[in-house]
Amino acid sequence: MSKTAINPTRNENFSEWYQQVIQAAELADNAPVRGCMVIKPYGYAIWENIQKIFDERLKKIGIQNAYFPMLIPIEFLSKEAEHIDGFAKECAVVTHSRLKKDESGALVPDGELTDPYIIRPTSEAIIGNIISKWINTYRDLPLKLNQWCNVMRWEKRSRLFLRTSEFLWQEGHTIFESEQEAKNDALKMLDMYYDLISGDLAMPAIVGEKTEEERFPGAKNTYTVELMMQDGKALQAGTSHYLGQTFSNAFNIKFLGRDNKEHIAYTSSWGITTRLIGAIIMSHADDDGLVLPPQVAPYQVVIIPVIHDDSKATEINNYCSKIQEELNEFNIRTYMDITENTASNKTWKWIKKGAPIRLEIGFKELINNSVTLSRRDLGKQEKLSLPVNELGKMSGILKEITNNIRAKAARFRDERIKEVVTLDEMDNLFVQGFKGFVLIDKTETNNEKFSSICKNHSLTRRCIPSSLLQKAVMDGVLVAKSY
Amino acid sequence: MSKTAINPTRNENFSEWYQQVIQAAELADNAPVRGCMVIKPYGYAIWENIQKIFDERLKKIGIQNAYFPMLIPIEFLSKEAEHIDGFAKECAVVTHSRLKKDESGALVPDGELTDPYIIRPTSEAIIGNIISKWINTYRDLPLKLNQWCNVMRWEKRSRLFLRTSEFLWQEGHTIFESEQEAKNDALKMLDMYYDLISGDLAMPAIVGEKTEEERFPGAKNTYTVELMMQDGKALQAGTSHYLGQTFSNAFNIKFLGRDNKEHIAYTSSWGITTRLIGAIIMSHADDDGLVLPPQVAPYQVVIIPVIHDDSKATEINNYCSKIQEELNEFNIRTYMDITENTASNKTWKWIKKGAPIRLEIGFKELINNSVTLSRRDLGKQEKLSLPVNELGKMSGILKEITNNIRAKAARFRDERIKEVVTLDEMDNLFVQGFKGFVLIDKTETNNEKFSSICKNHSLTRRCIPSSLLQKAVMDGVLVAKSY
Repeated sequence: MSKTAINPTRNENFSEWYQQVIQAAELADNAPVRGCMVIKPYGYAIWENIQKIFDERLKKIGIQNAYFPMLIPIEFLSKEAEHIDGFAKECAVVTHSRLKKDESGALVPDGELTDPYIIRPTSEAIIGNIISKWINTYRDLPLKLNQWCNVMRWEKRSRLFLRTSEFLWQEGHTIFESEQEAKNDALKMLDMYYDLISGDLAMPAIVGEKTEEERFPGAKNTYTVELMMQDGKALQAGTSHYLGQTFSNAFNIKFLGRDNKEHIAYTSSWGITTRLIGAIIMSHADDDGLVLPPQVAPYQVVIIPVIHDDSKATEINNYCSKIQEELNEFNIRTYMDITENTASNKTWKWIKKGAPIRLEIGFKELINNSVTLSRRDLGKQEKLSLPVNELGKMSGILKEITNNIRAKAARFRDERIKEVVTLDEMDNLFVQGFKGFVLIDKTETNNEKFSSICKNHSLTRRCIPSSLLQKAVMDGVLVAKSY
Repeated sequence: MSKTAINPTRNENFSEWYQQVIQAAELADNAPVRGCMVIKPYGYAIWENIQKIFDERLKKIGIQNAYFPMLIPIEFLSKEAEHIDGFAKECAVVTHSRLKKDESGALVPDGELTDPYIIRPTSEAIIGNIISKWINTYRDLPLKLNQWCNVMRWEKRSRLFLRTSEFLWQEGHTIFESEQEAKNDALKMLDMYYDLISGDLAMPAIVGEKTEEERFPGAKNTYTVELMMQDGKALQAGTSHYLGQTFSNAFNIKFLGRDNKEHIAYTSSWGITTRLIGAIIMSHADDDGLVLPPQVAPYQVVIIPVIHDDSKATEINNYCSKIQEELNEFNIRTYMDITENTASNKTWKWIKKGAPIRLEIGFKELINNSVTLSRRDLGKQEKLSLPVNELGKMSGILKEITNNIRAKAARFRDERIKEVVTLDEMDNLFVQGFKGFVLIDKTETNNEKFSSICKNHSLTRRCIPSSLLQKAVMDGVLVAKSY
């Protein structure tokens, strides 16, 4: 049995393995606040890289960032019935405006508000109310807004990144003259999520539409990006909603049209969250810890000076610095680990932290004008000696790593999607301990038996996959356990 | 009398002028939430530029971004007495975890929490609690953290950007082994704020230390950047606090030192907020609207096609696009205004929005292979014809604009700082309607008479200015009305 850096392993206890990977990589911690997390610097740097990539793309297609209040007057929620039902059960309510000391000296709420607020669980209501005043004529449309912010939805059982009461996200809100434009926008954003998730994050994504039962509260169509984690469960990694006139009706988003008549606008909204970091972990990490997609790794190349003889230390460190500078010129994010620690401990540290490439550089490499390169996606023993004049290959190697981890995750997923014809087949699979997705014809999914099987095995309808998934049958519903 | 784009003018009604500049430039709006604002895309883009400039500098000096929970358990506040007193009177309290419908069908708070939370007014308490677990030995220090986030402090009388219940900011929190390191850090951050505010934002800043009365709750020293607005009032634009062991004692931030004994850490914290946008308006804007410092202007150069003859439209637009592309290659942020509108309306629009440079480009310019350039900081009639092969000068012109608006604001300020010897002198000045800062010896400021004069004229001690302000007498206290 080979030793692994993370205990337990994925096979032994997936859920505990997940926690241990996060701890070993120093990504996040549970906070002393019900269901909340602290995102540590290394975890936050991953989020910043996701933001940077995606924000640039949003700006390129004319989406403008803005900032709307975090508090929503309760009465706004009342305006859209489905929306209330979706969020009323899990929201943080602000009822007081100050604290005072009671007789015992303890701090207690004071200054009760006449009209309480909730902390935004999502912002359709507050944004709808506000932008209705910005829009007068068709010339003010389309209006394409986005905000990067925090949101709150109380969670009874929280899991770092996957399900926390407070999380970070981007929420896009777009408003159009016509149904078709708004629908196209919802689909375009789904495409952009697909590109980010499958492309940059190297997670082979299934895109599709949510069934009625799983739609966003108030949406006409909810499109989704679904991923398979390494325990065969599904994770919803991003959603895009065509909202029709639901929120325009509720918040009076009207405009004077080209025909000089008043019209009600059509809207869409779409979001991705810090949950993507959880998805990265459960898609790519292994029993030695995190494996980061190079596009979002805080450091793409970590340089580890290997010093056996202190008299050579300065020379080796200088050589390492020179290599770091060269790599920086190729726009590669680098880190040179000169902490007080052995080279072997540093190597394990950066394996656990999922750095895509490690360069171990000692006196031998200095003499040979080379570096010894290890890829996180390959076996620990596979090392490559690279001459310094070939450092320009590094970007290419990083691309190879992206492609390799994506292909690996795709193979894993494809082996675990089963098409079934009958409900009995589906039931049998899960009875036998099947861990993966089942694709079943839509006509089979609207009856008691389907519901009962789902309930027994904790399954939900994930989506009706689009043709992007080669395996998809027409009108099939993807069914799985999920996060 | 010359017509101005903003009514009233600064002289007529400064406060209303401020609101009108914001509205005309489409920077922000009051929100339907007590004391809160909506930051519109053009205003948010200014904040994003401030963030980008400053965040890069923070990363360069080894400060790491992270994210801590927005909710703070009330009991944490109880641990630092001064801190409670400072914030207990103005905080949003979360007391419930869901909504339900009452008999009348109205939504009301439900699921009362045993332990209420407040929304962070600042994060010393929650960060102190959390990082105390991250720090074990001196090897874990210094720890230099920052977060960009929203905070809440209820405001009775809110003013867009200057004083809103929710605002955006960065809060840095740094932890050190020694007093000296923590003090140096607080001063270093003050310097960095000075560079940002005086340099990039072109607002001539006075740096100094707050007197005891004006310190941050819990701080040993509070350093500040103070600005003079165009009505002679002071605005605090950024603060940096040396916190000593106040929060380390309260939250048990201890470490095993180099001497193998347990020590209590020393901390600092520092922040700048979206209030900087208010400061930019009141420092640089004029009676025609916003004047943006080029470094943070969403668009540094706005191109306005001037089309008198529709048959020339395509040709002129193509010529404009070519110029835009060239400017983009010089890394200049550009916008070509091809909205349905007259050239004259577009010109006024971008004057009001404070674009540093406007290029009006019609058939004449096309024929001459030139552009007609107007600078926002100069008179409306001053135009320059620039040959296309000299577009490379644009970066230099933007620098000139920055220097010019800074010098203008500095002249304004310097004329309005008066050194006084006696309290009667000070009183007389304000009785006669003086609008500006008064510098008075510290020994004069600790008596009833001083307090009474301050109260009469709504004056406060702004700071003890450091030698960076050439006018400063030693141990002088700067006294002014303020925002």
